[in-house]
Amino acid sequence: MNNFIFQSPTRIIFGKDSENQVGAEVKKFTKKVLLHYGGGSIKKTGLYNRVTASLKENNIEYIELSGVQPNPRVSLVREGIELCRKNDIDFILAVGGGSVIDSSKAIAVGVPYEGDVWDFYIGKSKINDSLPLGVVLTLPAAGSEASPSSVLTNEDGWLKKGTGSDLIRPKFAIMNPELTFTLPAYQTACGVADMMAHIMERYFTHTTDVDLTDRLCEATFRTIIDNAPKLIIDPEDYAARAEIMWAGTIAHNGLLGTGREEDWASHSIEHELSAIYDVAHGAGLAVVFPAWMKYVYKHNVSRFVQFAVRVWNLENDFHHPEKTALKGIEKTKEFFSSIGLPVTLEELGIMDDRLDEMADKCTAGDTVTQGRFVKLNKKDVYEIYKLASE
Amino acid sequence: MNNFIFQSPTRIIFGKDSENQVGAEVKKFTKKVLLHYGGGSIKKTGLYNRVTASLKENNIEYIELSGVQPNPRVSLVREGIELCRKNDIDFILAVGGGSVIDSSKAIAVGVPYEGDVWDFYIGKSKINDSLPLGVVLTLPAAGSEASPSSVLTNEDGWLKKGTGSDLIRPKFAIMNPELTFTLPAYQTACGVADMMAHIMERYFTHTTDVDLTDRLCEATFRTIIDNAPKLIIDPEDYAARAEIMWAGTIAHNGLLGTGREEDWASHSIEHELSAIYDVAHGAGLAVVFPAWMKYVYKHNVSRFVQFAVRVWNLENDFHHPEKTALKGIEKTKEFFSSIGLPVTLEELGIMDDRLDEMADKCTAGDTVTQGRFVKLNKKDVYEIYKLASE
Repeated sequence: MNNFIFQSPTRIIFGKDSENQVGAEVKKFTKKVLLHYGGGSIKKTGLYNRVTASLKENNIEYIELSGVQPNPRVSLVREGIELCRKNDIDFILAVGGGSVIDSSKAIAVGVPYEGDVWDFYIGKSKINDSLPLGVVLTLPAAGSEASPSSVLTNEDGWLKKGTGSDLIRPKFAIMNPELTFTLPAYQTACGVADMMAHIMERYFTHTTDVDLTDRLCEATFRTIIDNAPKLIIDPEDYAARAEIMWAGTIAHNGLLGTGREEDWASHSIEHELSAIYDVAHGAGLAVVFPAWMKYVYKHNVSRFVQFAVRVWNLENDFHHPEKTALKGIEKTKEFFSSIGLPVTLEELGIMDDRLDEMADKCTAGDTVTQGRFVKLNKKDVYEIYKLASE
Repeated sequence: MNNFIFQSPTRIIFGKDSENQVGAEVKKFTKKVLLHYGGGSIKKTGLYNRVTASLKENNIEYIELSGVQPNPRVSLVREGIELCRKNDIDFILAVGGGSVIDSSKAIAVGVPYEGDVWDFYIGKSKINDSLPLGVVLTLPAAGSEASPSSVLTNEDGWLKKGTGSDLIRPKFAIMNPELTFTLPAYQTACGVADMMAHIMERYFTHTTDVDLTDRLCEATFRTIIDNAPKLIIDPEDYAARAEIMWAGTIAHNGLLGTGREEDWASHSIEHELSAIYDVAHGAGLAVVFPAWMKYVYKHNVSRFVQFAVRVWNLENDFHHPEKTALKGIEKTKEFFSSIGLPVTLEELGIMDDRLDEMADKCTAGDTVTQGRFVKLNKKDVYEIYKLASE
C-alpha cells in the first residue's frame, strides 16, 4: 500500500425532497449566488421552481447563467466569471450534472484569478484560491459533486482538458434520486459507464497490498452492475436510482484510490473522441475501456483474473488464467451493450479516418505517454482506437 | 434506502513516516496545543520525540497532559479543560488510541462550555462549540480518529456514556501503520473486535434496499478477517497493519451506515461490562456480540444468512436457512477466539453474579430499551448476558 492523503469534506444531503434544503445550506456561506445550470430541463421538471423558492425563503439573491452544454465550454465559463465579478458574487450554485458542476468549478477558480481560467487546464497555473460552490445533482455520472476535479473543453482547437484541487470540492451536494427519474435510458447508461470507468481507472494497478480498496471497488462495481439494468426497465425505481446515485459519488470521491497508483489513460483516450466528435463521455468510455483492457491485460493477468472472478462472478480457469481474464473483459463489454451503450467506434458513429490524428493529440505529438498501468505512446493509443473499432 | 447526511472532513495522512508532518498540520490552526497522551509507551517507542521535534520545528508551543487510561475518565478531562483555559490553548493534539482521542474530544468541547463537561454525556446539554483537535493514531480500533463520537467514564458511579457531534470530528488524523508494530497481540485483537463490531452495529438492520452499504460493509469485514490473523503471527507485517488501520477508520467514519438504520445495542450492553469490570472494550464486544446475534437472529434470518454467505463464505443451506444463519454466528465466535479473544464472560474473568445489576443499569431500571434491530428491555439484556456466559 502506498502512502496517501484522503479527505471527503463535501456534505452529502441525500434522499427524497432534499432539494428543499438548498436555501438553508447556501445561507451558511452567503446571501448571493450565481445560479448555474444547463438547458431548460430543470424548468420542465419543476426543479428550478423548487430551488429558487428555497433560495427566496432564505433571502438568497441569485443571478442566473444557463446554457451549459455537455462537454462544457470555456467561453461560457469566461462569461460566468465576468458576471460574478460585476455582481460581487462569492458563491456558485450548480444545478445539474457533471458538466454544470465542472463549469461551476471553473468559474469558482476563475473569479479570484488574474489570468485566463484556461491556464489551470493546460498546467500554466496552479489553483491557489477558489470561491466556494454547492451542488444540486440531477445526473449521477461524473462524481464531480464530491470530487476535486473539473474537465473543460476549449472550442479554440477543441481541446478537452482537466484540472484539480481540493479547493474546488463542493461544500455540499444535494442528491435526491427522484430528480433522476426523468433521465432518458441512454443518458442513465452513459452515467453508469462513467462511474464504472472511474472505478476501473483505480482498480487496474500494479500496487500490491491494497486489499481493502480492491474490495471496496468490487463492492461498488457489483452494486452498479446489479442496479443499472433495473433502471433500463423502470426509470422510476427509487431504490435502484438511489444505489446508482450514491455509487457515482463513492466511485470518484477519492476513497477507492487510497493507497494505490491509478491509471487514467482511458479517460485521456476518450477525451479526444468527445472533443472532436462531441459524443457523450460515458458512451465514449464504454467503447474505449474494453479496448484498453484487451491491449494491456497481459501486463498483469492475475489482476484481470481477480476482476473477472470477483466482479463478474466468473469461475477461474486455473490452467488458463488468460482465458478467464479475457472473459472478464468480454463480460464488461456485454454489460455495457446490455444497457444500450455502444461498444465500438462504429456504433458510436465514428469512422476510423481520424484515429491517427486523435492518437497524435492524445500524446501531444508522441511527446508524452498516457496512463500508469502501462505507459502508452502514440502507437499504443492508435492500436487501442483500432481495437475499439472491432 | 433512508435519507441521510454524510461528510468525512477529517484529513487522513496515511503511511510511513507520516508523524513527521504533525507540526506542519497543527500550524494551519494554531501556535500552541495541549499535547494529550496516555502512559509512557509513546516515549519508549520514540514517537514522543518525533512528535515534539516536529512541533518545535514549526514553532508550536505545547503543554502536556498525560495519564489517559483505557476507558478514559472524566476527572482527567476536567483537569485538561482547566489547563487549556489557564494557558489559552485553542487546539488539542491527541497522540494515542481511542481513549486518548475521546478524552481529547471531551476536553475540546469542555473548554468553551460554561457547565460541567459530563452534561454532554448524559444528554443534559448539546454540543454547540468545540476547539479543533488533531490526532496521531497509535491504535486502530475505535475509529475515533475520524468519527463524531466520544465515550467517557465517570468514576462517580462508574457510568460509561457517549456523546457525539460533527463538531468534534478531528481536523486531521496522522496514521502510520508502523506505529502499531509494537502493539501486543491481545491489544491488536481487541482493536479488531472493536472495528468488526462497528460494522456489525450497522450491518444488522431491517432497512431494505441498501445494496451498496451492504457490500461496502462486507468488503471491510473480509479485509479485516483476512488480515487480522497475519498480525498475530507477525506483528511487523506492514501490509496487514496498513489494511487493519485503514479498515478501522472506514468502519466508523459514517460511510457504512449511510441510508440505513443502525443498532448499537451491543455497544451499550458491553459498556456495562467495561464500566464495572474495566475490561478492554474490544474483548467485551467479542463476548457480547455473538450472544446478541444468537438472541436476535430470528427477527431477520435472511440478513444473517447474507452475513454467513457473503462475509464468511459459507454455503447457504437453502432448505434450512436458520442453520446457515447460526453457522455464520458460530464462525464469528470462532474467528474472535482464533485471534486470542475471550468469547464468554468466564473467559473474560467475569462471574455471573452481577448480570442483573448490569442489565438494570443498561436499561436505566428497565425504563429504556436498547437497540433498533430488536428493541431490548431489561429481561432481554439479561438473557444476552446469560447467553454470553455459555
